[in-house]
Parts: sequence; C-alpha cells; structure tokens
Amino acid sequence: MFKNRENVKEIEEGNLLSPKFDNDGLIPVITMCSKTKEILMHGYMNVEALKKTIETGEVHYWSRSRKEIWHKGKISGFVQKVKEIRIDDDQDSIWITADIGDGSSCHVGYRSCFYRSIPLGKIKDGKKIKMKFEEKEKKFDPEKIYKDQPNPTKI
Amino acid sequence: MFKNRENVKEIEEGNLLSPKFDNDGLIPVITMCSKTKEILMHGYMNVEALKKTIETGEVHYWSRSRKEIWHKGKISGFVQKVKEIRIDDDQDSIWITADIGDGSSCHVGYRSCFYRSIPLGKIKDGKKIKMKFEEKEKKFDPEKIYKDQPNPTKI
Repeated sequence: MFKNRENVKEIEEGNLLSPKFDNDGLIPVITMCSKTKEILMHGYMNVEALKKTIETGEVHYWSRSRKEIWHKGKISGFVQKVKEIRIDDDQDSIWITADIGDGSSCHVGYRSCFYRSIPLGKIKDGKKIKMKFEEKEKKFDPEKIYKDQPNPTKI
Repeated sequence: MFKNRENVKEIEEGNLLSPKFDNDGLIPVITMCSKTKEILMHGYMNVEALKKTIETGEVHYWSRSRKEIWHKGKISGFVQKVKEIRIDDDQDSIWITADIGDGSSCHVGYRSCFYRSIPLGKIKDGKKIKMKFEEKEKKFDPEKIYKDQPNPTKI
C-alpha cells in the first residue's frame, strides 16, 4: 500500500504515498476543524490507524495512553468526518481537515484542545508564564461523557 | 520559567505554562498561516527554541536534521512572525499562528509543506496510493535560495 522510501526526490516530488513512521511506529497528525479552521487536536497514527482513516473517512488515531487504535468519537459521539488528508514534504506528518459538526474534540470539555494561549514578550527571571483561556466555557461535561474512562493526560 | 508538572488538574485546567518535552527534549509544533489558515509546517521545539520564540516573536524551532536551534527564515528570508501561540490540554503540543507575508514555508519551494493530498476510499491490495498535488507551482527555486545547504529530508 505504501511505496518504499528510497530516495529524497521521490519522497518530496513524487505522487506515491510513502509515509515515515518514527521509532515507535507513529506519525504525528494535526486535526483542523473544516468549519472554523481552528486546530482541534494533535495526535498520532500507526499504519493501521492511517489505513482505517483513509478507508472509512472517519479519523482513527493510535492512543499512546491506552496503546490501542482509537476511533475518535466512539465514546463521546464526536466522530471526526474527514474532509481532506494532506501529508508534508518529507512525508513524516499529516494534516487532516475534519467536520465535527457542533461537537467537541477535547477530553477536558472544550471544543479545541488548544484552549489556552501563551503571551509573547520578555520572560522575567524566576517568574512562571501565565496563560490566557481563549475558550471561556466548556462544551460538555467530561465526567458525564467519559464516566469511568481513565484520563489520558500523563504527568 | 515553567511550572513543574505535578498534577493532571493543574496541567489541564491551570493557567501556568508547564510544557511536556519528550525523551529527546522536544515538543511538536503546528504552524498555521495567519492569512490563509493553511498549515504551513509541522516542527519541533526544545526549551531554548520555545523561549526564543516567546521572547522574540519570531518562530524558532529545533532542527532535528542539523541538531541546532533553527531561526526559521534566517537563510530564506521567510521569517515567521508570531501572531498567537497556543498549547493543548496536556501541554505536549503547540499551535502557532504566524504571518509569513507573501513568503513560503517549505524547503521544496511550495508555500506550505502540505502540498499533496491523500485520496479517501478502499485501498486495493498491492496497489500504491497515488496523491494529488494541491499546490501546482513552486513559489521559489530552492536551489537558488538554499544553495549548498544539505536537504533536511531523511529517508
């Protein structure tokens, strides 16, 4: 299904898919909302997740915390319908544009996982950097949706 | 400058920056064009690159191929001016929106590194997957701009 990675010219200028998976067998994935153009999440796929995504048109990731294929939205109902899949020049990262309707993407309850911004400017010695919440309200209550599922965030 | 990662609640719901760097000391970065909302590239930062980006307002990455801090645009002139930096729920990936003016981002010569799309649908046994070029023309000639610089793409 994938072309072997044999030379740089083919990888960069060719039209055959030859993705590069890292030492853990994963490729990073950027997921954008087709409606708002905001970035919803940053995830990872293995070969099987990429294949399932291409074939079903619904985004499948590799869950690094649960170590299994993760059909996004299977529990929450917030399935990500693929509008477009792109790959970058050296074929080691993927950008997906997806329709999530009026749903959410973030397990904390926000629409996007990227709900906080980091201020620019000189960092003062010994001072911690204070972020700003760009999303003010959660879209759903994760305790109701995910119930007994373990939290994927690791320290 | 960064808060220690001590508990999940603080990491997800707190307002102090406490990014997670992987075993190589890196955090993945999504870079979006502020004008077109297209994804320009997917890169990595170490602590120093993130600090320089916050303090200078110009995107600095860690170059995994050259193993050095990479002030994007220093050679090509296509500097990325930060409009916004966001971080995700578990603080292990960054989304930057940047102004690159009428410039480019991709070392192959295209505006975005993501110039090819992958078609959806059933993958036929033994068939390679043929991509489509979404950008038709290069924005610059990389041989003129980068001259003797080694190509960062690795097989």
